[in-house]
Amino acid sequence: MKINAKRLAHHFEQMSLIGKIGETGTSRPAHSPEEKEAFQLAASWMHDAGMQTRIDNFGNLVGTLKGSKPELPVLMMGSHLDSQPYGGRFDGVAGVLCAIEAVTTLTENGIKPERTIEIISFADEEGWRFKKGLFGSRGILGKLEEGELQRTDANGVTREKALIDFGCDISKFKESEYKAGSIFAFLELHIEQGPILDRAHKPIGIVSGISGPLWLTVKLKGMAGHTGSVPMHMRQDALLGAAEVIVGLNKIVTQIPGAPTVGTVATIDVFPASRNIIAEEVVFTLDLRDIDLDRRNRYEQQVRDLIASSAKAHQLTYEISEDTNSEPRYCAGWIKAIIGEECKALGLDAPELMSGPFHDALALSYACDYGMIFIRCKDGISHNPLEYSSDEDLALGTEILYGTILKVLEK
Amino acid sequence: MKINAKRLAHHFEQMSLIGKIGETGTSRPAHSPEEKEAFQLAASWMHDAGMQTRIDNFGNLVGTLKGSKPELPVLMMGSHLDSQPYGGRFDGVAGVLCAIEAVTTLTENGIKPERTIEIISFADEEGWRFKKGLFGSRGILGKLEEGELQRTDANGVTREKALIDFGCDISKFKESEYKAGSIFAFLELHIEQGPILDRAHKPIGIVSGISGPLWLTVKLKGMAGHTGSVPMHMRQDALLGAAEVIVGLNKIVTQIPGAPTVGTVATIDVFPASRNIIAEEVVFTLDLRDIDLDRRNRYEQQVRDLIASSAKAHQLTYEISEDTNSEPRYCAGWIKAIIGEECKALGLDAPELMSGPFHDALALSYACDYGMIFIRCKDGISHNPLEYSSDEDLALGTEILYGTILKVLEK
Repeated sequence: MKINAKRLAHHFEQMSLIGKIGETGTSRPAHSPEEKEAFQLAASWMHDAGMQTRIDNFGNLVGTLKGSKPELPVLMMGSHLDSQPYGGRFDGVAGVLCAIEAVTTLTENGIKPERTIEIISFADEEGWRFKKGLFGSRGILGKLEEGELQRTDANGVTREKALIDFGCDISKFKESEYKAGSIFAFLELHIEQGPILDRAHKPIGIVSGISGPLWLTVKLKGMAGHTGSVPMHMRQDALLGAAEVIVGLNKIVTQIPGAPTVGTVATIDVFPASRNIIAEEVVFTLDLRDIDLDRRNRYEQQVRDLIASSAKAHQLTYEISEDTNSEPRYCAGWIKAIIGEECKALGLDAPELMSGPFHDALALSYACDYGMIFIRCKDGISHNPLEYSSDEDLALGTEILYGTILKVLEK
Repeated sequence: MKINAKRLAHHFEQMSLIGKIGETGTSRPAHSPEEKEAFQLAASWMHDAGMQTRIDNFGNLVGTLKGSKPELPVLMMGSHLDSQPYGGRFDGVAGVLCAIEAVTTLTENGIKPERTIEIISFADEEGWRFKKGLFGSRGILGKLEEGELQRTDANGVTREKALIDFGCDISKFKESEYKAGSIFAFLELHIEQGPILDRAHKPIGIVSGISGPLWLTVKLKGMAGHTGSVPMHMRQDALLGAAEVIVGLNKIVTQIPGAPTVGTVATIDVFPASRNIIAEEVVFTLDLRDIDLDRRNRYEQQVRDLIASSAKAHQLTYEISEDTNSEPRYCAGWIKAIIGEECKALGLDAPELMSGPFHDALALSYACDYGMIFIRCKDGISHNPLEYSSDEDLALGTEILYGTILKVLEK
């Protein structure tokens, strides 16, 4: 193995001490002193790898290994060092630390690329603090939306104030943006955050793309009544209607065995929520994802038809609002091919799988070709202190990332 | 018509002013100054009917028309004057005011029964204040449970304190109890609180019995996971399992067309209730009622089997707790027959129907034969300021109650 697995494991261990909660948990909010401390530690390792570092005006940590032809578009890597409030020590961290290890190996081997390499720890990927994520990765691409700086956290602190306190100059966002065409490709290594690799006993996966979610909120309205006195055939039971939609959604998304489509109802609120009063109003959220947008669109129509027919059957009125409608973003075929070759060279049978969750790579996908390497995580648990990927799997992923970098640099 | 419909309507109007909320609503909590005021008004009408009145140690208002043979078991009538916090002006009130009107008519016609007649406005039928109802009707039968006086309302006031403040002597409950065999029969007129009569365009119904509810709480536990990254076949989605039970319950209770069985899930709570995290735990309540206990027992078993199979299908664990298990209590055939004759005499086709909600008559059913007259209420709405029964229907019901009393007195 070319990379230094022992050093990599040590870096994970040291990083986990910053914002540590409990035995294995991490709490590093975006733009927080904990994130700053994590940046300083990561920056020290970037320096060891021969990189220059800076914190830009979006609160991103940027490490640069200047190439011999700095006019070429850069090869960018990265992920994030902010965490969920009750999170683990691998989500995001892996993409930063494994990239640093790969670049360190490059430098140790005396390789001097023509193309500049950058590693970015993007600010506020998680998004929970201001209820909107991918802040840093959207920021460098000029994709922030109206009013984003005025969003507040649970303590009433605005994003603007948090950035200023972090040391950012919010009047100079333009200086931190990347011009169109200035990024050659983006590579992100990430833990899977799902159970597919773990169940299949495969350490590494090749990401086919990030399936954007369709998020709907559905409101069904019927008529309250005493559960003891309204005969079944006279009811307008909004919860029964909702239950039919939940059951039907499961049938819709599983109609093609083996397809990666997923559909979920995970929140439901009932009014008046008294055990002996028939539900008058039910509001639930619906999450539909597929790497195949055509299929997702077909299924969306089936779901809408199902809601309409279930509402009709129970004499309910309904409203459907669309909260998010992201399109799937596919990884570049040539990068997937390189990752695949690297896996094969190590004797690994690495399955291709879609990413349900989004990542900073989603923002970058609009600026350049991108590729992602997934690392197996135990039982698919993530966003939880129980999140776990082994040192061995992380080292394997880093070795593949290293090999991938070398081949991408040849392009 | 023998009863005085105009006086009756006037009484409803006057009673509605006590604890009035909005245009048509009523809020008269149990053991409250508003209930006391209602008792005073009702007592004044009882006096007009020739009755003596008292408030007993359970907080019941008791009106007595002494018979010429006071050693005979009494004919008891009544209902309640307490209301839901956001209730209507007919629930319970009808059973008290219509009985007073019937007895007034008796007296006006110079009828002097051998049997003593009593009208009781039972304390805290509704049960919301201390989360346990039928207090007064259970009280007079010695059926209070351990610890009932220590139950507290939303302000931390105990039942004990509320009763003492109301003027009750809680050390003398025994004096207010009825000896076994001392009640000959119980009659309760009540609004239907359901839509059957209204939809059938029938003003009056004859109650077949009160179907006690079976109340279960079901907890399903699966495994949380990201809605985007856990493939459908690897999920342990507790909400999907719950939805299958809700849909299946509806099929179970409607398997015999036209049967009065009702089954409802009306509350459901999900954890962690985040739109992109698969539901790990779901708790819902289930309400099953039938006038046929054997059938209800069969259906209960089908529901339990359904929960087990749905849990198995989705790899969930489950717990079922039984919160209430009341048996159906049937009205006396001979009283139903008398009510039926009275309806026929007035040219009414009165359907027989079961009562889903319980009433004070449920408590009395364990002490004597009982009968109930249902009055149509608009759209089946009750426990709501929109609750409405017409003066005409209430007068008709009172006329039937009057005729019923005369025939019961002959027994």
